[in-house]
Amino acid sequence: MCGEAEFEAGIKLAAVFHQFVGAPVNESNAELLEKAMESCMKLQPYVVEAEVRIDREKLRNAVSSFGYTSLSPEMLYARVCVELEGKKAVAILKWDEDAGYPLMRLV
Amino acid sequence: MCGEAEFEAGIKLAAVFHQFVGAPVNESNAELLEKAMESCMKLQPYVVEAEVRIDREKLRNAVSSFGYTSLSPEMLYARVCVELEGKKAVAILKWDEDAGYPLMRLV
Amino acid sequence: MCGEAEFEAGIKLAAVFHQFVGAPVNESNAELLEKAMESCMKLQPYVVEAEVRIDREKLRNAVSSFGYTSLSPEMLYARVCVELEGKKAVAILKWDEDAGYPLMRLV
Amino acid sequence: MCGEAEFEAGIKLAAVFHQFVGAPVNESNAELLEKAMESCMKLQPYVVEAEVRIDREKLRNAVSSFGYTSLSPEMLYARVCVELEGKKAVAILKWDEDAGYPLMRLV
Repeated sequence: MCGEAEFEAGIKLAAVFHQFVGAPVNESNAELLEKAMESCMKLQPYVVEAEVRIDREKLRNAVSSFGYTSLSPEMLYARVCVELEGKKAVAILKWDEDAGYPLMRLV
Repeated sequence: MCGEAEFEAGIKLAAVFHQFVGAPVNESNAELLEKAMESCMKLQPYVVEAEVRIDREKLRNAVSSFGYTSLSPEMLYARVCVELEGKKAVAILKWDEDAGYPLMRLV
Repeated sequence: MCGEAEFEAGIKLAAVFHQFVGAPVNESNAELLEKAMESCMKLQPYVVEAEVRIDREKLRNAVSSFGYTSLSPEMLYARVCVELEGKKAVAILKWDEDAGYPLMRLV
Repeated sequence: MCGEAEFEAGIKLAAVFHQFVGAPVNESNAELLEKAMESCMKLQPYVVEAEVRIDREKLRNAVSSFGYTSLSPEMLYARVCVELEGKKAVAILKWDEDAGYPLMRLV
């Protein structure tokens, strides 16, 4: 059926966004959080690749006087590849500076 | 592009699931939570219809001796219709008893 | 026991923060989200009052070109009063501009 | 001030609960998620120790036919020690089978 792989890709990007935005983060645990987020994506059906990155420069700039911040849409990047009945879909979550929006799109 | 409406539909179902699972709920605020979840879905791009329901029987059975419970995957139903460049996609989130899984699927 | 009311107050503020940050919001559903968040707080043990406000000016400034944004720590205010074994604790969650931090404190 | 350490302890337990409940998990990433959750707790103010455990037996029993489940209140244990102005508070989040409730309490 047309669109099933794309449907699954959309699920994965929104899942990682809405599950993890708000989590306490600074440079000391950013890589661990990235790995945890990737592991969560990889468990979900039809995922063949998943990558999550937290923008370190934005992270450093957002750190409060308490030494950390909350994971925010601005600093979160994710890429997922799903494969379903021989069809692949690749999608990306990336902050769009012009729109001021965490844009999710098929590539 | 094939699959864009389906991609958007997937985003909306996963967003409502991962944002709201865990929220304190009982029969007194279930309808309010449903309306809030629907309002969040309707704000997102391309959504033309959104419906969220919390299974009242499962909710009653899950309520703890403290008088409420956490919104769980078992009790959450959502349906979304998105329209994008003249193409529609309708998708449903519904607990699948056999699989023991909050299944999201295109309809 | 000293500190039990304060312990419960802390639970409530962190619950509302970590449950709802990331939710899609604009002026059209801000009041509904506030009511839903308050309802969740009021269900929890020992809560006698709960108030949640989303800063409308910050909300308007954060709205993307897609017409909404994600609920962020900067725009979230909450106040809770708990009463336990005759002792009260009142606590507030409010963005601290100087610290760049969603400060939770007893009042 | 009486209760400040307890207030901070409550914040940490509710934060980990409401941030991570719903995350995709099975035995392959349970330890990674535990470490990520502990890292988030340890970043927060005044935390001197944090431990998070996911009950492996409950986890195995909850895994769906898709090979994973969502992190649920039933399987989550956390313990935090905070120290503030020379005063310590230790608190635990643990599922209470009798109450059917994720009980947070000072110890």
